[in-house]
Amino acid sequence: MLQSQLFTKTRKEAPSDEVSKNAQLLIRAGFVHKEMAGVYTYLPLGLRVLKNIEKIIKEEMDAIGGQELQLTALQDKAIWEKTDRWSDDVLDVWFKTKLQGGTEVGLATTHEEPLTRLMQNYISSYKDLPFGAYQIQTKFRNELRAKSGIMRGREFLMKDLYSFCKDEKEQEEYYEKVAQSYEKIFNRIGLGDITYKTFASGGSFSKYSHEFQTLTEAGEDTIYIDEKKKIAVNKEVLNDEVLVDIGLKKDSLVEKKSVEVGNIFTLGTRFSEPLGLMYKDSQGKENSVVMGSYGIGLGRVMGVVAEVLSDDAGLVWSAETAPFQVHIVTIGDHQDVLKQAQDLKESLENEGLSVLWDDRDTGPGEKFADSDLIGIPLRVVLSAKTMESGTIEIKKRTEEKPSHITENEAFNGRVKELLGEM
Amino acid sequence: MLQSQLFTKTRKEAPSDEVSKNAQLLIRAGFVHKEMAGVYTYLPLGLRVLKNIEKIIKEEMDAIGGQELQLTALQDKAIWEKTDRWSDDVLDVWFKTKLQGGTEVGLATTHEEPLTRLMQNYISSYKDLPFGAYQIQTKFRNELRAKSGIMRGREFLMKDLYSFCKDEKEQEEYYEKVAQSYEKIFNRIGLGDITYKTFASGGSFSKYSHEFQTLTEAGEDTIYIDEKKKIAVNKEVLNDEVLVDIGLKKDSLVEKKSVEVGNIFTLGTRFSEPLGLMYKDSQGKENSVVMGSYGIGLGRVMGVVAEVLSDDAGLVWSAETAPFQVHIVTIGDHQDVLKQAQDLKESLENEGLSVLWDDRDTGPGEKFADSDLIGIPLRVVLSAKTMESGTIEIKKRTEEKPSHITENEAFNGRVKELLGEM
Repeated sequence: MLQSQLFTKTRKEAPSDEVSKNAQLLIRAGFVHKEMAGVYTYLPLGLRVLKNIEKIIKEEMDAIGGQELQLTALQDKAIWEKTDRWSDDVLDVWFKTKLQGGTEVGLATTHEEPLTRLMQNYISSYKDLPFGAYQIQTKFRNELRAKSGIMRGREFLMKDLYSFCKDEKEQEEYYEKVAQSYEKIFNRIGLGDITYKTFASGGSFSKYSHEFQTLTEAGEDTIYIDEKKKIAVNKEVLNDEVLVDIGLKKDSLVEKKSVEVGNIFTLGTRFSEPLGLMYKDSQGKENSVVMGSYGIGLGRVMGVVAEVLSDDAGLVWSAETAPFQVHIVTIGDHQDVLKQAQDLKESLENEGLSVLWDDRDTGPGEKFADSDLIGIPLRVVLSAKTMESGTIEIKKRTEEKPSHITENEAFNGRVKELLGEM
Repeated sequence: MLQSQLFTKTRKEAPSDEVSKNAQLLIRAGFVHKEMAGVYTYLPLGLRVLKNIEKIIKEEMDAIGGQELQLTALQDKAIWEKTDRWSDDVLDVWFKTKLQGGTEVGLATTHEEPLTRLMQNYISSYKDLPFGAYQIQTKFRNELRAKSGIMRGREFLMKDLYSFCKDEKEQEEYYEKVAQSYEKIFNRIGLGDITYKTFASGGSFSKYSHEFQTLTEAGEDTIYIDEKKKIAVNKEVLNDEVLVDIGLKKDSLVEKKSVEVGNIFTLGTRFSEPLGLMYKDSQGKENSVVMGSYGIGLGRVMGVVAEVLSDDAGLVWSAETAPFQVHIVTIGDHQDVLKQAQDLKESLENEGLSVLWDDRDTGPGEKFADSDLIGIPLRVVLSAKTMESGTIEIKKRTEEKPSHITENEAFNGRVKELLGEM
């Protein structure tokens, strides 16, 4: 894409009412726009990142056999009353509204109830189990405070997977499969090194659940990490008994601030029982389906990447999440240089890379500052000078100094190779 | 995909409270689930169709330079008051709700207001214009009645494009470009032959707008079509003066029922003026930006396809919208047949086709009935009998009788060729 055609522009300052670092950077770089606290519009660059994160999550969910569907935001009060979650005293983040006739409806904060009811149409026998169904869909949560930018939204995109199993053993296997899938997801997003599978409270149907917690001073959670074992415990559940239980020693734990980027949860029969989701086993006996739920907030993950991987100059994206993978920056308006840029852009796009070309009529200083702020992983500079020397200047976003490769290398796979190393 | 692993199943009957043909068929075939009137969950097969429609629309919007973004559902009362559209008396399909602090917010039925406000950050000069920005996003409309299945939802996915131009002339050019893009979209979806570009009321800033109306007895609109000129007039604006104006003769018009699948609209300065969206022209003078809006309801389009292209046996999808392009049906459980099915599935997938294989332990009668109900464009039957003869049986969904091609042809591009003819 030509940067001159992008309708967004970078700005020097974020709005004064925006206190979170992630949203300040994302607004300055033109990735998001703040509609109100906790409610953000995704602009073209931001939406490309969000879609990349969605693609990674979708691929990994499909790889473990998840079947995608899309539930609704508007919610029928009746089913939530059956599980005792309609009352604002129980679920305190409801948005509620009314149909024209006066019937009260809610905006979904989560989807266990409608999905459990729906599955009554499709689950009747043990032969139908196990399977998983997931969606990538907008959730609404009426948060009292929303000061963490896109890390805690009142309206946000979430992936939620639900598993349907015959018994606890089958559920445990499914749970483990999802845990491994989540590790792949956070690795691909670029958060793997600082994301810990963390023991957390299990609710009434299992001893523990697991959160995936990413280390950041901006986080609202406190966890204790064992760096060697790459495992952690949420402060909320930490006690001597738990430590024995999960085989960790107090001395090897370090306290850290973190933000929850995903969670996996065994629900047992918490929803299948009140909503009557049953199956017949091989002896013809009726049993409640055993369920699990597994969430990742897409906006939150994007916000965490913006918060923790950025530096003083701006955003830093990984090769798989970046809005574009290569940023071509041309200096001056020499026709041969523009021609070279056009050719290189096409050549890289033919190799399957996505390219943003800063073709604006602007000085190099502003172009370089914008390039750093936007955070595309590889920057390629073309000028009359590089042209003369038969080279192009190339710089990884995470490196201080540029290096040079020959024009021939640039047109023959070297750029893609460099990206692969990131 | 293996049909035995799909969690949905077909059913003989639709729920008794479902009166629309499109939703009856889509529910029976396992494409959608009704949460409440006008509110439908998209199940795996249905979501695949919806995503295919989305892909077509996205490709055509990108082809005319549209930049994708994603606005929010939650709406700030203040901007809607500025355009006098907050009151339920003016916009009668609002859902409204409250933040925890008591602040009233709305759920977006459309997005002119927030997008116009947002663009103040990015439009300042004539050099920034023209451009178009679009989204594919969930709209909420509090309809008094919702009896048309997914053709009129209370919550539905919509593509809305907005154009930003310097003056009326530039806006007219943009409008024409979108009109042509829409024709491509409806052709690709399979509705081109029965979809008419229809003169409709223009509002305060242009004489006419255009609706894209698809002929169906289930439609809520009445239009007059000129079949030769492939153009129509909405009954609401039809009078002698209008006929002269647009060059149509009363005698050549036929009255038809239809449903609006898209609309294109010149907004003029209806929103830019009250919200202060201005640009400086080349003389440095401030002017209001001239806008246009262009909508297509994705669920509605899918509902119309289900309504008008289906037959007594079930749904009928085009090659580009179908949840899968080829339906392999195996008869019996002969190991060689199953091996052939597996090989053919992989071969077709390697050619880029999507394949559903009915590998269920079910009789041929039920398999054929389900295949017709689901409506995949090409059905391939493999059995011990076809195997013996070195052929495979192949049938287009729209044809009565199957034909045979050799196994060699099936493995070497003939299936893809047949799809291309559809």
